[in-house]
Amino acid sequence: MRMYDIIMKKRNGGELSKEEIRFFIDGYTKGEIPDYQVSSLMMAIYFQKMTAAETLELTLAMADSGDKLDLSAINGVKVDKHSTGGVGDKTSLTLTPMVAACGVPVAKMSGRGLGHTGGTIDKLESFPGFSTGISNDTFIKNVNSIGIAIMGQTADLAPADKKLYALRDVTATVDNMSLIASSIMSKKLAAGADAIVLDVKTGSGAFMKTEEDSFALAKEMVTIGKNAGRKMKAVISNMDQPLGNAVGNAIEVREAIETLQGKGPEDFTELCYTLGSQMLVLGGKATDEKEARAKLEEAVKSGKALEKLAQFVKAQGGDDSYVYHPEKLKLAPIEKDILASTDGYIEHIDCDEIGICSLMLGGGRETKESEIDLSVGLLLKKKVGDKVSKGEPIATIYASDEAKVLPVTERFLKAYHFTDKEVEKQTLIKGII
Amino acid sequence: MRMYDIIMKKRNGGELSKEEIRFFIDGYTKGEIPDYQVSSLMMAIYFQKMTAAETLELTLAMADSGDKLDLSAINGVKVDKHSTGGVGDKTSLTLTPMVAACGVPVAKMSGRGLGHTGGTIDKLESFPGFSTGISNDTFIKNVNSIGIAIMGQTADLAPADKKLYALRDVTATVDNMSLIASSIMSKKLAAGADAIVLDVKTGSGAFMKTEEDSFALAKEMVTIGKNAGRKMKAVISNMDQPLGNAVGNAIEVREAIETLQGKGPEDFTELCYTLGSQMLVLGGKATDEKEARAKLEEAVKSGKALEKLAQFVKAQGGDDSYVYHPEKLKLAPIEKDILASTDGYIEHIDCDEIGICSLMLGGGRETKESEIDLSVGLLLKKKVGDKVSKGEPIATIYASDEAKVLPVTERFLKAYHFTDKEVEKQTLIKGII
Repeated sequence: MRMYDIIMKKRNGGELSKEEIRFFIDGYTKGEIPDYQVSSLMMAIYFQKMTAAETLELTLAMADSGDKLDLSAINGVKVDKHSTGGVGDKTSLTLTPMVAACGVPVAKMSGRGLGHTGGTIDKLESFPGFSTGISNDTFIKNVNSIGIAIMGQTADLAPADKKLYALRDVTATVDNMSLIASSIMSKKLAAGADAIVLDVKTGSGAFMKTEEDSFALAKEMVTIGKNAGRKMKAVISNMDQPLGNAVGNAIEVREAIETLQGKGPEDFTELCYTLGSQMLVLGGKATDEKEARAKLEEAVKSGKALEKLAQFVKAQGGDDSYVYHPEKLKLAPIEKDILASTDGYIEHIDCDEIGICSLMLGGGRETKESEIDLSVGLLLKKKVGDKVSKGEPIATIYASDEAKVLPVTERFLKAYHFTDKEVEKQTLIKGII
Repeated sequence: MRMYDIIMKKRNGGELSKEEIRFFIDGYTKGEIPDYQVSSLMMAIYFQKMTAAETLELTLAMADSGDKLDLSAINGVKVDKHSTGGVGDKTSLTLTPMVAACGVPVAKMSGRGLGHTGGTIDKLESFPGFSTGISNDTFIKNVNSIGIAIMGQTADLAPADKKLYALRDVTATVDNMSLIASSIMSKKLAAGADAIVLDVKTGSGAFMKTEEDSFALAKEMVTIGKNAGRKMKAVISNMDQPLGNAVGNAIEVREAIETLQGKGPEDFTELCYTLGSQMLVLGGKATDEKEARAKLEEAVKSGKALEKLAQFVKAQGGDDSYVYHPEKLKLAPIEKDILASTDGYIEHIDCDEIGICSLMLGGGRETKESEIDLSVGLLLKKKVGDKVSKGEPIATIYASDEAKVLPVTERFLKAYHFTDKEVEKQTLIKGII
């Protein structure tokens, strides 16, 4: 078998066989097939696309390219959740204690990653003492005893995907539904869960800007997962404005806790209940979404969900008093309101730009080496559909550096678009697949 | 400027600017842009194509990437000729003395290359003592005094093309008309001629198998050349069967000499007159094709063309007595006829396969290091349209190794296809652009 013939076949619109896909992924992972042949194949795939059979095989081959987690020592149906990411997305912090409180075991391996804010691990480190550096044994033991554990990514999961994604990223071959779906799903399959609930974001702050693309990606991933023998659900949710009101790290943890206390923003609360319901049903802890939702609401109302977060933080070395006193989570000292420059209704928010404001404050990583300032962030007071008067605060900045306040304020204001006419509030849940 | 944005622009169907093309070719030549980005751009070009403006700029950028020959010290209009190659193509050997005898200066830099037979230089080395290792001064002096000189390729012509072609060759991105045309034309432009006559082959033994593709390539190259300020003509000629009857090295030189003596095969003679007429007109040595053809025929009839070959061979150290006694050119000792296995008309010849027979005998290079046996080859006695009887010789093999006779005979016979019905002879000249 020759890589040349594989490129030619795809270029000419052919369907690659299982053997051809395995040959290419195995050879590329081992360094036997050079980048320049792979990048030309990726561009051919961009134009000729892949069938469902090819996409599944590519995903499985990448999942098989490195370590695979064995979660068999954990009791019950392991349900994983994955978000395609966005601005103000602190969902894991609230959702995992909620579902764990209802009996669904949460065994997550998380990364830090690059972005407008830190990843889940960074945010959790807002709790003094908290660490994801726990042993495999502790990890399994904690899941079985308290229902949640999160480990830093130690295993070499889907190295073929890592190599392929890095190549696609510099050769303009990221934008293909099958390649995007197989990249996400290869890591999820290697991470060993029995069931996976996907949170696919759509809008100006999401990787997928249009609903059409978001639904297509969701369908593609659900198909892969089902074909790989996993239970699958995908929720398509709005990311045309930040999720909830908090954007940052400690400030998002505060909002996550408030939501577990039943005092969270409406949109974020709704998303947690929607995703949680799907997880409970797939995990066999509820027969339908209605029953699941009632259980989740009860877990919040009774305080069990909040208590689960406290148990989890404590079990991994963190100070659980912060869970009950989120005001102890330190915010940056410079607190400045951003004032509306006009009267009117908020028509649109350039959601990505709000993320960039967080990054400018120091809340995210530009390179792998960047240090994150957990205390900085933004708290939105007005979102799409809200009426504002000139001079009214639309958000508050929490900054550690006075010099950053003005440029962030200017950028933030440019991201908000006003109109005279009344504007409808945005729908959060666009669909469930 | 970033290579990533250039790939993305082409991928999305945009037209690259001059600056973008120069940036990419300069960066690639210097090794600053990696192969993997270039191969993905090549695949994007395969799908999105290039405009005439892009193709011209790519060609010029590649021509500018290395040395460029300065032929200004040579008197008159320098006319170059280029063939896209095929089986039995000994045209340069006959054509250059013909046009030189009519006053068109021939200043060629030639390579050896890979192929079914050797290149022009290999074939010329059939004359004992002949060498292309002459100095620049001798080269210029010979062209000005006798009208022809051929040098081995010493200058670093179009290194960007060399690098790009090698990459395209292993990434299934050769088959794009603009890329093929710019590859050929970049070297021709760097070689410094004022006018270029292209011999674009079409058929089973050519790089372009269909007439449609061959005309398209010819048009593309003529457009590039004209846009680069050169006088251009392209002749599209048949390569659906070998050109002339001889396939090999010394045996092709014999046929080239016979043609200069007016005793050559009809098709090959016709091609030389057609190409030569175009060269004489572009070179200002005839006002139209009719006058040019008459001059060429006279040069052959008078013996001046043959004499020009003798002067040229002698000036570069070769034994010119061979020009007047081509039977002195040594052929391999084992001479075996291939006999027709059936009665009928020859309907079709798999032309490439006849080339492979020459390669099997040792007449060509499989790798750059291969030694060529100049004495081996094939002499066809029957071509498409000829009627043959079972047992009649259709060709003669000249081999140095007895063991090769049987496999070559078998392969040769498989390449000939017979029919009961009468078959028209093939047209040699398909068109002139």
